[in-house]
Amino acid sequence: MANLYKEISGGITAPQGFLASGVTGGIKKSGKKDTALIYSQSPAKVAGVFTTNQCAASCVLLNKVNIKDGLAQAIIVNSGNANACTGERGYQDTQEMVSFTAKKLDLEKEQVLVASTGIIGEFLVMDKIKTGIDKAVADLSQSGGQEAAEAIMTTDTYSKELAIEFEVGDELVKLGGIAKGSGMIEPNMATMLGFLTTDIAIDSNLLQEALVEAINQSFNRITVDGDQSTNDMVTILANGKAGNNIIVDKDEDYNVFLDALKYVCTYLAHQIVRDGEGATKFIEVEVKGAQSLKKATKIAKQIANSQLVKTAMFGQDPNWGRIIMAIGASGVELDLSKVEIKINDTVLLEQGERVIEHSTETKANLLNDEEIKIEVNLNLGEYSDKVWTCDLSYKYVEINAEYHT
Amino acid sequence: MANLYKEISGGITAPQGFLASGVTGGIKKSGKKDTALIYSQSPAKVAGVFTTNQCAASCVLLNKVNIKDGLAQAIIVNSGNANACTGERGYQDTQEMVSFTAKKLDLEKEQVLVASTGIIGEFLVMDKIKTGIDKAVADLSQSGGQEAAEAIMTTDTYSKELAIEFEVGDELVKLGGIAKGSGMIEPNMATMLGFLTTDIAIDSNLLQEALVEAINQSFNRITVDGDQSTNDMVTILANGKAGNNIIVDKDEDYNVFLDALKYVCTYLAHQIVRDGEGATKFIEVEVKGAQSLKKATKIAKQIANSQLVKTAMFGQDPNWGRIIMAIGASGVELDLSKVEIKINDTVLLEQGERVIEHSTETKANLLNDEEIKIEVNLNLGEYSDKVWTCDLSYKYVEINAEYHT
Repeated sequence: MANLYKEISGGITAPQGFLASGVTGGIKKSGKKDTALIYSQSPAKVAGVFTTNQCAASCVLLNKVNIKDGLAQAIIVNSGNANACTGERGYQDTQEMVSFTAKKLDLEKEQVLVASTGIIGEFLVMDKIKTGIDKAVADLSQSGGQEAAEAIMTTDTYSKELAIEFEVGDELVKLGGIAKGSGMIEPNMATMLGFLTTDIAIDSNLLQEALVEAINQSFNRITVDGDQSTNDMVTILANGKAGNNIIVDKDEDYNVFLDALKYVCTYLAHQIVRDGEGATKFIEVEVKGAQSLKKATKIAKQIANSQLVKTAMFGQDPNWGRIIMAIGASGVELDLSKVEIKINDTVLLEQGERVIEHSTETKANLLNDEEIKIEVNLNLGEYSDKVWTCDLSYKYVEINAEYHT
Repeated sequence: MANLYKEISGGITAPQGFLASGVTGGIKKSGKKDTALIYSQSPAKVAGVFTTNQCAASCVLLNKVNIKDGLAQAIIVNSGNANACTGERGYQDTQEMVSFTAKKLDLEKEQVLVASTGIIGEFLVMDKIKTGIDKAVADLSQSGGQEAAEAIMTTDTYSKELAIEFEVGDELVKLGGIAKGSGMIEPNMATMLGFLTTDIAIDSNLLQEALVEAINQSFNRITVDGDQSTNDMVTILANGKAGNNIIVDKDEDYNVFLDALKYVCTYLAHQIVRDGEGATKFIEVEVKGAQSLKKATKIAKQIANSQLVKTAMFGQDPNWGRIIMAIGASGVELDLSKVEIKINDTVLLEQGERVIEHSTETKANLLNDEEIKIEVNLNLGEYSDKVWTCDLSYKYVEINAEYHT
């Protein structure tokens, strides 16, 4: 990804008027940080996109209600326990998390969003949650972005954050984000949390539209294992402190903001894939020449989710046979005699037949790098799409087989 | 599976009038058997079901033409090379395999079916193919069923065959089958070959109908890794030697045959899952109480294809949280407060909430056996479906990462 923006330090606390913290409430056996709080010093416009999983957790359900008025001021997050499939008691606990946080911050409870991530089916231990909230409120600071990024991690091996600045009209606007993965990642936002903050002034409906579009090209284009969780969400708070003329139309200012938002979301999405459970390779799958965007996407996802393709990439074998298998298995009609497959710019299949000139050595060296680009050209139309995934390694199996409930 | 039929020895050569062989033509580096021939001493009715992969191999395309007249007498199979994505030359090689076999057996080429399985994208070495065919014709015998079963194997660790006998009217009918897996196995018949023989007398259209129905409940209900290959097929030859009144209607005789066919196909399908790449567990996923069969199937497949569920089963962890995640990710609408999940008859989730009475020991012991039954009741309707899969182990990654093109 080209570096189009000026990156700045501070993550979600880089934009003006935002404070954050990440503390230990005692939820995780490891004793690591488990509670994050994001706070805007003034009411902010809010937008959110939530999991489509039919068994969505109570935090997702409650947020959908609370963002309806387009305003929010804080987000409380716990990691270590997803509070999903916990029925009525779980829903009450989620409400209590919100009410308790609101009270401590002197806000209405409708101004507080909530997220939980971790094990499914266990009740929250509310004492620990409240301990976490107490500490998080006390720790709120302008330098707390990094700690919040750490506190939302589960099986992530490193925290993910970015902040950039850019001009909107004559004003300097800042946009920051944090995210967590790292299993159950698949298009439509599986097991991931993303929280964005910005000081831009924008109408809340346009904020929602921009978020949806940015997510569609970033978080919804990544997959680790094709699984999808119950708790995923990406939210954004925009408090207007940058002082730009408030964006109320899809004008140039809107487009500047949208591009910046896509940039941050794509960066965070790629970080999630790079830190996918057991990942040793970052794989971009691009499908070109399709007859529709939908067909391009379908094929790209079929390749990206193929266990056989992913294990071949782990084994550093440019096995285009598995790629063509996945293309065909997508069910999208194609003309095999037109299909071209490249891996890292080397053409392996042309007009549906293998290119035989490559030496064994060339092929063996093709996948040495951590970055792999699989490019398929169907040569049937004008549409293309990209998705990003990682390989499937022993470590993935280890992480997921040895993690016990 | 209850043992409802009298099992007999002989596999595909158990039915009257069938000969088979399995020999080494020299295709596999390992020197193992790579060529199988199945031969009916008289013209037989034929039916076949083929991969829906859009990049279907030339053997699939040719067979679709050759079964149109409803008659065939021989099937030539090579393992080690799938002859897929080999363009015009590959198609000519397939035709040559058929013509050469037909000539050696003194048949018309339209009476010969052909199958290839193995690596994609390599041209057949026709000298080796012809050596194999020569030997296979010379070796044809009434006891050759087992050798044919061995010769169609690729990464299978053991050969799969079954023969049964049953009465149709006053006549004793025999039905035999062989199959191979064992990666790229997923509903809609991925990377698998199945060949059935029977001496029943039946109309070829009804034979096709019965085969489709039997496959739908067996081979199309198994999944190893969600991938689907370019070369899959299941065919059946019925030569009428049993002397029953030819079945021309969906009468009682037809139903007796259909049940027997389902039995053999299900047995072979289960064997494929049990021998799935790296499999240590055989998993049955049953979804009950759905509002339609389609919804039951969709949820069952989502669970069976979830890498997180499959790694949990490998790790012997009754992680129903991952099961509920998969149920929700299917996109099928449900009422979480009604969902029940059992593993090996132990209720883990009831009315959408976990059953907390189980001791850690009970849970730890729940998955000790090689057989796992996951049972989901949505409690919304009357439809149910079953699919079968295996777990995801280190060995799967090893087999597929270390297999090099």
